[in-house]
Amino acid sequence: VTLDRLDTPALTVDLTAVERNIERMQSYCNRHGIALWPHIKTHKLPAIAHMQMRAGAAGITCQKLGEAEVMAAAGLGKILITFPIVGQRKLRRLARLAAEHDVAVVADSEAVVRGLSRALAEAGASVGFLVECDTGQGRAGVQTPEAAAALGALAASLPGLEFAGLMTHPLPDGYGPFFARARELLAEHGLDVERASVGGTPTGFTAHAGGGVTELRAGTYVFGDRSCMANGTVTLEDCALRVRATVVSIPTPARVVIDAGSKSLTTDPGAVPEGGFGYVVGWPGATIYELHEEHALVDISGCETRAVIGDTVEVIPNHVCPTVNLHDEVFVHRGGEVVARWPVAARGKVR
Amino acid sequence: VTLDRLDTPALTVDLTAVERNIERMQSYCNRHGIALWPHIKTHKLPAIAHMQMRAGAAGITCQKLGEAEVMAAAGLGKILITFPIVGQRKLRRLARLAAEHDVAVVADSEAVVRGLSRALAEAGASVGFLVECDTGQGRAGVQTPEAAAALGALAASLPGLEFAGLMTHPLPDGYGPFFARARELLAEHGLDVERASVGGTPTGFTAHAGGGVTELRAGTYVFGDRSCMANGTVTLEDCALRVRATVVSIPTPARVVIDAGSKSLTTDPGAVPEGGFGYVVGWPGATIYELHEEHALVDISGCETRAVIGDTVEVIPNHVCPTVNLHDEVFVHRGGEVVARWPVAARGKVR
Repeated sequence: VTLDRLDTPALTVDLTAVERNIERMQSYCNRHGIALWPHIKTHKLPAIAHMQMRAGAAGITCQKLGEAEVMAAAGLGKILITFPIVGQRKLRRLARLAAEHDVAVVADSEAVVRGLSRALAEAGASVGFLVECDTGQGRAGVQTPEAAAALGALAASLPGLEFAGLMTHPLPDGYGPFFARARELLAEHGLDVERASVGGTPTGFTAHAGGGVTELRAGTYVFGDRSCMANGTVTLEDCALRVRATVVSIPTPARVVIDAGSKSLTTDPGAVPEGGFGYVVGWPGATIYELHEEHALVDISGCETRAVIGDTVEVIPNHVCPTVNLHDEVFVHRGGEVVARWPVAARGKVR
Repeated sequence: VTLDRLDTPALTVDLTAVERNIERMQSYCNRHGIALWPHIKTHKLPAIAHMQMRAGAAGITCQKLGEAEVMAAAGLGKILITFPIVGQRKLRRLARLAAEHDVAVVADSEAVVRGLSRALAEAGASVGFLVECDTGQGRAGVQTPEAAAALGALAASLPGLEFAGLMTHPLPDGYGPFFARARELLAEHGLDVERASVGGTPTGFTAHAGGGVTELRAGTYVFGDRSCMANGTVTLEDCALRVRATVVSIPTPARVVIDAGSKSLTTDPGAVPEGGFGYVVGWPGATIYELHEEHALVDISGCETRAVIGDTVEVIPNHVCPTVNLHDEVFVHRGGEVVARWPVAARGKVR
C-alpha cells in the first residue's frame, strides 16, 4: 500500500531518511571519537534503536525506567537512564534490570544516590553512575562543580554504584568550565571522569568543540522536526517522521480544517521562531494557527493551495518526541511504499 | 492500597467527586428540559459513560469514529459523532456502526454530506444528521443560517441521512440569532429542528438562557480541571482527576522538579489566566513554570512548602481531556482508597 492510501491521521516514518540521519550523526561522532548514545525517547521503537546500534552507537539513552524495560526486552542491553530514580518500586525494578543488563543512571542529590545504593546493594546488583549537572539549563542537576565532585565521591564510596562521570544538557552553553573544574576536583578524590555526557540534537554536531565531551545523547536527529529545520540540523527532505492528515472542512476560502489536532500533533510549541503547530508539506505559506484535540486550523490565505475536502497532506510536527508519544503505531515506508507497521512499543511509559 | 502508595506519575479519579459532578450537570439539564449528551473525549472510559447514562443522559457524544466504536463495544449504543467523517474506510466503519446502533453525525459541506449518504445508502444503513454551524468560534461549520438551511435541506433529500437539526460550539456567544434564522429557513423547506445542540462546560450551566437549545454536549464537567476552576464551573474539591507525582530533584531552594512532565500533564495551556501548567494541591503559591517531557519545574519561592525528595503531590491539570489521552490507565478511588484500575479504553483513537 502507498502512503496516500492510509487512513488518517497516520504517523509515517521514511526509513531511507532515518538511515541517512543515523549515518550522518554516527559519522560525526566517529570522526571526533565521541561515543553516541542515541536517546530513544524520540522514536520509542526497538527496531530503530537496533538500527542505531548496528550503525555504531555505544548504547542507548532512556528517560524513564519503563522505556528502558521495553528496550531491554527487545534485546537492547546497554542503557543510560537520564532521570533520577526515586521510590522503592522503581528501585526494585532498576535492580532487576541491572542484574541482567549494563545499566547506568544519573542523580543530583545525596538522597537519590543513597536510595540507589541501598536498593542495588541489597539486590547484589550494580549500575554505573553519572552526576547530573545543571550547567545553565536550569532543570535538574547539581549547581556547582564542587557539588558535582562531592556527589561523585559519595557515589564512589557506596556499594552498588560505580562512579563513571558527569552528565549535562549543554544548552545554554556553559558546561565546558563546569566540567573542567569538576574533573579537577574529582581527581583530588582519585576519581576519573570516564564519561562526560552531553545531550541534544541542536548542539550535537558541535559536541567536539570543547568541554572534553566523551559521549553524546542525541534523539531528534533520527527523525528531524520543524524545530530541527529551524535550527538547521535537519533538512526538510530528511524529516523522516510526518503526520498524514485529511482535509475535512473548508469553512471559508482562507481556512482549512484537517483531522490532525493536538491529539496527533501535540500543543508542544518546540523551538520554532515563526510559531504555528507544524509545517504543511507542499503548502508553502500556509500556517497551522490553532489546534483543538481533533482539528487543526490552517490559514491558507498566504499560499496558492486549492484544497478540496478529502485531500491528504503531510505535516512535519514542531517537536517530534511528544508527537510519537501520542500514536500507537507508525507506518514505515520506503519511497512512499509502506513496508511495515510498528507498534510504538515504549509509548506512554511515564513510570 | 491508598493513593499515597501508588507509583508515580499516576492518573487518579475520585469516584465520589465524579458522582457529584454528574448529578449536578444532569440536574441542571433536567430542570431545564435539556437533553444531556456527555462528551466522552474527556474521560474516554466506558464505565464513566455508563454512570452518565444511568444518571439520565440521553446518549453520548464522541469526537472520532474510533471513540464511538470503543463505546459501542462497551454497550453504549446512542452516539452523536461531532466530527466530519471523510474517506471510504471511515464511511464503511460508520455504516457498520450505524447498522447496529443509534448514530448521528455532523457535517458542514455538501462533499461530506454526499459521501455520507452514498456510503450509508449502499450499506442499507442510516444516521441522524445535524448541520455543524460556525456561530463565532471560527473552527468548522457553515458560515451562515442560509448555508445551514441549504445543507439541511440537501441532507433531508438524500438517502441514508435523517435530518435532525443544528449543532454548534457556543463560544464566543452568537448562536441564538444564527439558530433562530436557520430554523425559520428550514421551516420553509418543511424541516423541523428537533435537535439544537450546543457544547462545552464553560457555558453548560447557561445553555437554557437562549437560542432554543434542546441538548447539551459537555465533557470536562465530569472531572473538572484548572480551566474549570478558573471559569468557576468546578471547584477545587470537585476536581476529580489528578496527576500524582513525586519530587525527584530540588536543585535550588526555589526550584522543585517533579516526575510528571508534558508526557503526563500535557503542554496544553487550557484557559488559565495566571499561566503555568497545573495547580499543585497543597502548595498554594507554587507555580509549574516549565515542562519537559518527563520533568515539571515548580517555583516554590512564593509558598511555604518544605519539599523533600520522595514527597508526592497531586496536580490538577490545566486541561483534563488531553491529559487523560496521555495515560494508559486510571486509578479510581473513594476517599483515597483505590477501588479500581481502569484502562483508558478510548485513548489514542485519532481515526
